[in-house]
Amino acid sequence: MGQNKYAEIQEKAFQANMQLPALGLVLFTFGNVSAADRNTGVFAIKPSGVPYRELTPEKMVIVDFDGKTVQGNLRPSSDTLTHAVLYKNWEHIGGISHTHSTYATAWAQSLRDIPIFGTTHADHNTIDIPCAPPMDDDKIAGNYEYETGYQIIECFQEKGLDYREVEMILVGNHAPFTWGKSAEKAVYNSAVLETIAKMAFVTEQINPNSSRLKNSLIKKHFERKHGPDSYYGQE
Amino acid sequence: MGQNKYAEIQEKAFQANMQLPALGLVLFTFGNVSAADRNTGVFAIKPSGVPYRELTPEKMVIVDFDGKTVQGNLRPSSDTLTHAVLYKNWEHIGGISHTHSTYATAWAQSLRDIPIFGTTHADHNTIDIPCAPPMDDDKIAGNYEYETGYQIIECFQEKGLDYREVEMILVGNHAPFTWGKSAEKAVYNSAVLETIAKMAFVTEQINPNSSRLKNSLIKKHFERKHGPDSYYGQE
Amino acid sequence: MGQNKYAEIQEKAFQANMQLPALGLVLFTFGNVSAADRNTGVFAIKPSGVPYRELTPEKMVIVDFDGKTVQGNLRPSSDTLTHAVLYKNWEHIGGISHTHSTYATAWAQSLRDIPIFGTTHADHNTIDIPCAPPMDDDKIAGNYEYETGYQIIECFQEKGLDYREVEMILVGNHAPFTWGKSAEKAVYNSAVLETIAKMAFVTEQINPNSSRLKNSLIKKHFERKHGPDSYYGQE
Amino acid sequence: MGQNKYAEIQEKAFQANMQLPALGLVLFTFGNVSAADRNTGVFAIKPSGVPYRELTPEKMVIVDFDGKTVQGNLRPSSDTLTHAVLYKNWEHIGGISHTHSTYATAWAQSLRDIPIFGTTHADHNTIDIPCAPPMDDDKIAGNYEYETGYQIIECFQEKGLDYREVEMILVGNHAPFTWGKSAEKAVYNSAVLETIAKMAFVTEQINPNSSRLKNSLIKKHFERKHGPDSYYGQE
Repeated sequence: MGQNKYAEIQEKAFQANMQLPALGLVLFTFGNVSAADRNTGVFAIKPSGVPYRELTPEKMVIVDFDGKTVQGNLRPSSDTLTHAVLYKNWEHIGGISHTHSTYATAWAQSLRDIPIFGTTHADHNTIDIPCAPPMDDDKIAGNYEYETGYQIIECFQEKGLDYREVEMILVGNHAPFTWGKSAEKAVYNSAVLETIAKMAFVTEQINPNSSRLKNSLIKKHFERKHGPDSYYGQE
Repeated sequence: MGQNKYAEIQEKAFQANMQLPALGLVLFTFGNVSAADRNTGVFAIKPSGVPYRELTPEKMVIVDFDGKTVQGNLRPSSDTLTHAVLYKNWEHIGGISHTHSTYATAWAQSLRDIPIFGTTHADHNTIDIPCAPPMDDDKIAGNYEYETGYQIIECFQEKGLDYREVEMILVGNHAPFTWGKSAEKAVYNSAVLETIAKMAFVTEQINPNSSRLKNSLIKKHFERKHGPDSYYGQE
Repeated sequence: MGQNKYAEIQEKAFQANMQLPALGLVLFTFGNVSAADRNTGVFAIKPSGVPYRELTPEKMVIVDFDGKTVQGNLRPSSDTLTHAVLYKNWEHIGGISHTHSTYATAWAQSLRDIPIFGTTHADHNTIDIPCAPPMDDDKIAGNYEYETGYQIIECFQEKGLDYREVEMILVGNHAPFTWGKSAEKAVYNSAVLETIAKMAFVTEQINPNSSRLKNSLIKKHFERKHGPDSYYGQE
Repeated sequence: MGQNKYAEIQEKAFQANMQLPALGLVLFTFGNVSAADRNTGVFAIKPSGVPYRELTPEKMVIVDFDGKTVQGNLRPSSDTLTHAVLYKNWEHIGGISHTHSTYATAWAQSLRDIPIFGTTHADHNTIDIPCAPPMDDDKIAGNYEYETGYQIIECFQEKGLDYREVEMILVGNHAPFTWGKSAEKAVYNSAVLETIAKMAFVTEQINPNSSRLKNSLIKKHFERKHGPDSYYGQE
């Protein structure tokens, strides 16, 4: 194992994948996380359809940014090409997480952006969480997972969003994808998104006329955590 | 025990039944799973009303496809005749699961099919999950559990469904039944159905005008997992 | 301890009380269960405001059917007089359970009976679960817990219900009470009621026009479990 | 450690903070609890952004009632100034808890007071749980957390509420704050508020015309637990 130059990202991908069931974000194998190594241009990702209790770091498949398997005997996640496209186009991300968590998926199924109703949301995003519209039929029939990556990227381009600021999206009729500097951060974002999605659902049930957070509060809360003068956390 | 020729299906039925509380699908004894042996023409099923913590493989009752007990001192599940009818008529199924899981049961109580709103659903079924209409009064007063089996089969006939493709149904005003090649797969389907049922409920709450998934996406997702060119999982 | 003639009901009351947090039916100390001994005319009940983790069988307070403490140094549950009135008037019950479980309490707060929408409900009751209307102001200002007992009894009288058939009620604006032949059965009924309450809530959300179960199905399911020819369970 | 004159409040703050994840009230680090020492005029509070599993009593930061750190190397919670303002102005409180628990936060996001629908609510408060309106923009841009403290205090002044009777508030578009004689009581109130918030949400879903509890019942239940003749608990 000392020879395995991918051991570090395999370990990171393994730990991050195991967080999905621990955080209640997946049923059975309905999710996958990857961790990238920018130096060697590859990422480690969960093998397809393998139960979480049978996962080990060594089983994580090593894939390059074109989606070609570089190391590993197992077939990688069926969503691997989506991960590859995002890594190839968004050079500052180090991890990607995909789940079918209940409330985020319900918003994706309803084809609605999640409105920014409160500071829990604003602590992480200054905008409504975008829902990418469903893909054109010709792309679905083509290289579907590859196109899902571009579906995400194009949604960000059309809305003028920066993937370094907004680290989550709903893929319409499908489910959420999240990312971040590391696989751990990507999974963190999956859990945050599920919580925000549930809160927004309940908020509209309580008051169908609930309005979006005003700009001054959005700005304040996001800058508390993320601005140049942020004062949340220990550094 | 080495003499017991039913030990294998008893073990399978036991393991599958124990998954119901582990997956949060049953309260007390409100569920039952069976595992069939096509060679000997029998199935092993949970005894009626016995708490899960007191179950053992040996307590699983052996019943033939006409519903007659072949081995065992305990009374089999009160739903045994429904299982028997399905095994007798649908020769390719090896396991059946019945629960009163909350969200699937609520859809059954509302007498509505569960609309196919997203890819979580399409990964498992290409159609709305059918809800069989309530039984006629004379059948209810007659051999009720036996008729429940035919209620399921007739619903599939009327809708032109194939039980090898659609492995789940809601029995109107009652609760879900699911099946599959094995008892394990039947229970897997019970959990999938409950998740789909909850997601569909929340989806309609978020957007009452949510529309069904378009056909191209339904086809793509189902074939990813189940078509001749499926590329999900390890084989 | 061998001298303690109440040890048996104290043990039963203790075990039943400990089931409330195990079944997720209580937050902190918001619930209480009692177990009666018809021979000596007393019941054992949870002391007031004592956390579940500090309970022991010995701490269960012994009270007679007029509500007078017979044994024990702790103050009995503040709802003790309600229990006493029910034991005194309904001679066939051996246990009573009171919780503020979320969904049953929400129905009580909405002042609505829980409609019988499916067979999960019919397995336990042939009717809508009654919600007793709020008490008159003069009774509230008087001996409140004592009157709560009569509020329950009068609701049953007005609706022509038999407490041996219907073992649960919602007290309007307050919360559910359930009972049965034993404390264990009373707690079982608390859990069943909470499940039925949640299912009925979701059913109406999915289909606001959901209709009550037809009589033939109500009859069939209840008699499966409770009629002279019942065939559920092992005897 | 024997020298550390703040060890007692650090231990109390630590224990109370650890209750937040145990009670399911926080995701990751989205909450903080403090414990005050009125003799020395300081409080111990959770350090900012530190995961609960890494907390120890020694890591609790000691801060005075003007918000100045008195002891500790870690940065205190970003909400520290809100705590400081409340301790400085409300001299009878010994603990404060802040969470983003799902249902209470949803009510805060909907900008509605939580109506008093039942006795679970009345056992703890005689009024609707107040929702403070969002802050003016100039205050948000200024000393935000400091102003949040005054936002809470002013809401109580405008509604004529006494913080010794009503120990919880929703800060509009943000989330709940609760307090009490001790940090333990403050956390207890956080859990009670979340339960009341969920019950009220479900109550309105079941019956949109649900009406507030009548005054006689409000009075009775609150006095059972809190009046001079209270008879709940053991003293």
